[in-house]
Amino acid sequence: MTMRTLIGVMGPGEGATARDVANARELGALIAREGWVLLTGGRAAGVMDAAAQGAKEAGGLTVGILPGPDVRGASRALDIAIPTGLGSARNNVNVLASAAMVACGMGRGTASEVSLALKAGKPVVLLGLSAAGRFFQELGGDRVSTVSSAAGAVKELRKRLAP
Amino acid sequence: MTMRTLIGVMGPGEGATARDVANARELGALIAREGWVLLTGGRAAGVMDAAAQGAKEAGGLTVGILPGPDVRGASRALDIAIPTGLGSARNNVNVLASAAMVACGMGRGTASEVSLALKAGKPVVLLGLSAAGRFFQELGGDRVSTVSSAAGAVKELRKRLAP
Amino acid sequence: MTMRTLIGVMGPGEGATARDVANARELGALIAREGWVLLTGGRAAGVMDAAAQGAKEAGGLTVGILPGPDVRGASRALDIAIPTGLGSARNNVNVLASAAMVACGMGRGTASEVSLALKAGKPVVLLGLSAAGRFFQELGGDRVSTVSSAAGAVKELRKRLAP
Amino acid sequence: MTMRTLIGVMGPGEGATARDVANARELGALIAREGWVLLTGGRAAGVMDAAAQGAKEAGGLTVGILPGPDVRGASRALDIAIPTGLGSARNNVNVLASAAMVACGMGRGTASEVSLALKAGKPVVLLGLSAAGRFFQELGGDRVSTVSSAAGAVKELRKRLAP
Repeated sequence: MTMRTLIGVMGPGEGATARDVANARELGALIAREGWVLLTGGRAAGVMDAAAQGAKEAGGLTVGILPGPDVRGASRALDIAIPTGLGSARNNVNVLASAAMVACGMGRGTASEVSLALKAGKPVVLLGLSAAGRFFQELGGDRVSTVSSAAGAVKELRKRLAP
Repeated sequence: MTMRTLIGVMGPGEGATARDVANARELGALIAREGWVLLTGGRAAGVMDAAAQGAKEAGGLTVGILPGPDVRGASRALDIAIPTGLGSARNNVNVLASAAMVACGMGRGTASEVSLALKAGKPVVLLGLSAAGRFFQELGGDRVSTVSSAAGAVKELRKRLAP
Repeated sequence: MTMRTLIGVMGPGEGATARDVANARELGALIAREGWVLLTGGRAAGVMDAAAQGAKEAGGLTVGILPGPDVRGASRALDIAIPTGLGSARNNVNVLASAAMVACGMGRGTASEVSLALKAGKPVVLLGLSAAGRFFQELGGDRVSTVSSAAGAVKELRKRLAP
Repeated sequence: MTMRTLIGVMGPGEGATARDVANARELGALIAREGWVLLTGGRAAGVMDAAAQGAKEAGGLTVGILPGPDVRGASRALDIAIPTGLGSARNNVNVLASAAMVACGMGRGTASEVSLALKAGKPVVLLGLSAAGRFFQELGGDRVSTVSSAAGAVKELRKRLAP
């Protein structure tokens, strides 16, 4: 059995803050060091790109599930690019393909992915998101954790994924 | 040109409150009386079912976009049932097929649909949702309205859809 | 129970022949006269457009499941336009939403829809398709009928959909 | 730039012949030796499973795009499993994610994937398929090659993917 554990890191593209981007890069590296595969929405923007870069720099494997029908606009730090042609319907593929999800910053697409992850019963870690945290904890209950650092996120993932 | 205006009414299935259901039924009827077509997630549960029943009783046309591959579990108040086999990825089809969306109650699927509607640039009306309202207004800005009655929702839709 | 029977008419868009278009228009009208709802891929081209026009002229109801994220390029003879944003993945929605399918002409998209319909266990009628007919009859066995006229297609649909 | 080339190997699951399975296993190994990533429909059956096993035995990387919402029924020879929850709509994701596709045996799902690949403009190699070959060559023209061995398929892929 060779199946690898995929961890989804979701967050804003163009609208990411400098702090979202720094968190995502560190998170990507830490995920790679755990031996997990990083999964993102695949675009060369914001959190998606930073997480993939962090994971590659740490020697990890990176997968991107793209909304468009081809690899245009894909992050250059992806090993495996999966263009879906599904538009935002691909957000649910991101969710189902991830054993657990970290939201690193908040936007409209990210909010949909957190909601869909809770619907699918996946553990969700919110990194540095106090206002959204309150909304999603009411929505998701025990499945939602809020943390304030990339290291805290990985510690939470380890706990959630323990057999 | 015969194309009809579709209004999406989204909300919890099994988790709907009595008030969500009453609002949905009234909303369905008011939407039908405006000459709009009602679109829902199609299942025979909660807000989806109540809105479809309200619309049918008022002589309207009803469309349901179902998550499963066939019509099992579909509301009996649908004229047009579209099984998609897409699971929760069908939530984005609900969004794209609607000229505007009303959320009548809140759940995980509904939160994903509101988020995806804001991502797609669609007007969203939140009916009776004060806590979620604050989160989504921060997320969606001007595109989000909060109202406290079905009649208020339709008034808001009329304004948003005016040419 | 108000649920209507949807019949899918599939065929080439830009690549349709004059005969495909004539067949599609007649088929749309005959489907409407049976009291069935016409479902197509929704675009303003070839078989999709002709079938919808035929159905509207005969007083029928028409539904189009579009590949794009909005109604640009939709046939003007649609009552209900469902933009999916799924690209060619919407072909499987066409299939699942149809009680039975008629292929009126053959192209790459149509071949995928016939194949997916056979996979989903739906009855398929091939109108005027001798070469493709041999391939798909080998693939689909009893589920595939070949006919040479729109009237023959409707006769076959009636038989296949009889309770 | 670390992006890997993905080659899709499609073919019947439960309906695969002994020859389809032997071809798929050899093909998986040859694809891995070229340094390409093997992509399949991911299930633990027929051509999908055999190709993944062949690729793993040759030290390659394997990706499976699954129709269901979780990894139940996935091949044990996958490194990266992507459950999509899309049912047969995932066939178009298989197509878009592959730089080129080899059909190794023929079934209803495979016929839809070949058709969608031609629609998307991807090179398609048909391995050991004389009857289907005639149909799809008429449909796809120059984009379709027919070969009689796994080695012949890889030779054809090399030619098609040459810059």
